Amino acid sequence: MTPDVPASRVAFEARLRQIGAERYHDLHPFHDLLHGGGCTPDQVRAWVINRYYYQHSIPMKDAAFMSRVEDPDLRRQWRSRIEDHDGTDTNEGGIRRWLRLARAVGLDPDYVASCEGVLPATRFAVDAYVRFVREKTLLEAVAASLTELFAPKIHANRIEGLLKNYEFADDSALSYFRNRLKEAPKDVAFGLAWVLDRADTAEKQDQAAKALTFKTDVLWSQLDALWGAYVQPGRIPPGAWQPGQGLVDARAA
Amino acid sequence: MTPDVPASRVAFEARLRQIGAERYHDLHPFHDLLHGGGCTPDQVRAWVINRYYYQHSIPMKDAAFMSRVEDPDLRRQWRSRIEDHDGTDTNEGGIRRWLRLARAVGLDPDYVASCEGVLPATRFAVDAYVRFVREKTLLEAVAASLTELFAPKIHANRIEGLLKNYEFADDSALSYFRNRLKEAPKDVAFGLAWVLDRADTAEKQDQAAKALTFKTDVLWSQLDALWGAYVQPGRIPPGAWQPGQGLVDARAA
Repeated sequence: MTPDVPASRVAFEARLRQIGAERYHDLHPFHDLLHGGGCTPDQVRAWVINRYYYQHSIPMKDAAFMSRVEDPDLRRQWRSRIEDHDGTDTNEGGIRRWLRLARAVGLDPDYVASCEGVLPATRFAVDAYVRFVREKTLLEAVAASLTELFAPKIHANRIEGLLKNYEFADDSALSYFRNRLKEAPKDVAFGLAWVLDRADTAEKQDQAAKALTFKTDVLWSQLDALWGAYVQPGRIPPGAWQPGQGLVDARAA
Repeated sequence: MTPDVPASRVAFEARLRQIGAERYHDLHPFHDLLHGGGCTPDQVRAWVINRYYYQHSIPMKDAAFMSRVEDPDLRRQWRSRIEDHDGTDTNEGGIRRWLRLARAVGLDPDYVASCEGVLPATRFAVDAYVRFVREKTLLEAVAASLTELFAPKIHANRIEGLLKNYEFADDSALSYFRNRLKEAPKDVAFGLAWVLDRADTAEKQDQAAKALTFKTDVLWSQLDALWGAYVQPGRIPPGAWQPGQGLVDARAA
C-alpha cells in the first residue's frame, strides 16, 4: 500500500466517521454535565450565549462558501442551509429558535443577539471556521461541514437530557434541536456524497480528513473555553458574560 | 461649507444619481449599436457570452456580502437577490433566463455556461467587483450595487430595441430583462435607503460615491472589452470566443 493510492470509498468514509468517534464534542465533559442535569442555570446560560455566536456565524460561513461557487446548481443546493438558519417566510429559522431557548433560560434575547458577552476564545474558534471556508478549497470547506454526520445523536441526547433535567426545557425552548434533527440529515447526505465523489486521490482524502479534524477542534475548543470560564476553575475572562448580566427584563418575561 | 459637513440626504442622493447620469454604461456606444439593430449576430453572441460571466458572478458577489453580515435580518433581506438570479422552486431565476437568451441567439447554453470564451478583460472587471464586495466596507458594497438605480431605463430600451431590430427577440428570449424590471426596483429601494441612512459623514458619502463610480467602471470596461474585441478594431484576444464557436447543436435547436 503506497500513500499515493486513495482509499476505497467505503474505507474513506469509515476514516471520516472515525474522526467523529474520536474527536466530536459529544465526548467533551461539558455535554455530560449539561445533558445529565449537572449544569447550574448560569452554566446553561453561558452555553446558550456562547453557542449563539456559533449559530449566528454559520450562515456567514455558508455564504462565504457560496461566494466561491461558480456552479448555480451547487449554490441553489447550498442555499437551503442559510434558509434553515436565517429563516424564510414560512420557517422562523434556527437563529430565532435559539433565541427562544435564550428566553426560556431567562436571558434577554437582545442581549444574546448582541454577542456582547461571548468569550473571546469562542469568537476566535468560530471566526477561524468562517475564515477556513473562505480560504481553503471547496473540498475542504464541505468536508469541514461533515461534523453534521455526528450531530443527530447529540441532539437526540440533548433533547432527552434537557427535558428530563431542567425546568425551562419544553417543546418551544428545544425546537432548535428538533428542527436540526430534520434538517441536518439532508445537508450531510449531500455533503458526504460530494466529498466522497471528489476526494479521488490520497492527497485530497488527507485534506478532507484534516478539514474535518479542524472542525472538530473548532467545536471542542468552544466547550473548553466554556468549561474554563464557567465550570472549573471558573475564571471568566475580562469582558465576557458575568452571571446576572443580560437577564430577561421582568416586565417582558 | 467645510469638507467635513455631510451633504443633506437629498443632495447626497442627487450626487449618486449624477454619477449614473455621467458614467452608467447606457452611455456606451455598444448599447446604441445593440439597441439600434446595428449589431451582427456574432456581436450579439459575444455580448451574451461575456455578459453571462457577469450574471453568473452576481450571486457570488451577494454571497460574499452576506458572508460579512452579522445581522440575520439584513442577510434575510439580501438573500432574495441570490434567489432572483439562481432561482427557486417557483422561479427559474435570471441565470437560466439568460441561457434562454443564449439559445435564442444560436449559442449552445452549455458552452455559454462553461464561461470558456469569456474575454479576460471581462473576467478581470467582474472578479474585481466580487473582490471589492468581499473586502471593502458594507457601506461601499451596498453603494456599489446602486447602479441598479439606472438599470430600468436601459432594460426598457433594450427590450424595445431588441424586439424591433432582431429576429431572435421574443418574450422568452427577453424574459431576463422583463424580470429585472420587476426585481431591481425593490432591491435598489432598499439599498438606496440603507446607504442614505448610513453615509452620515462627508467621509462616508465620499466612500459611497467612489464605490458607485467604481461599479460604473466595472460595467463600462466590459463593454470596452467587447467593443475592442468584436466591434472595432475587432482584435479578439487569444483564447476568447471566435465567431462560429459554441453554436447550438443543430439537433437540439
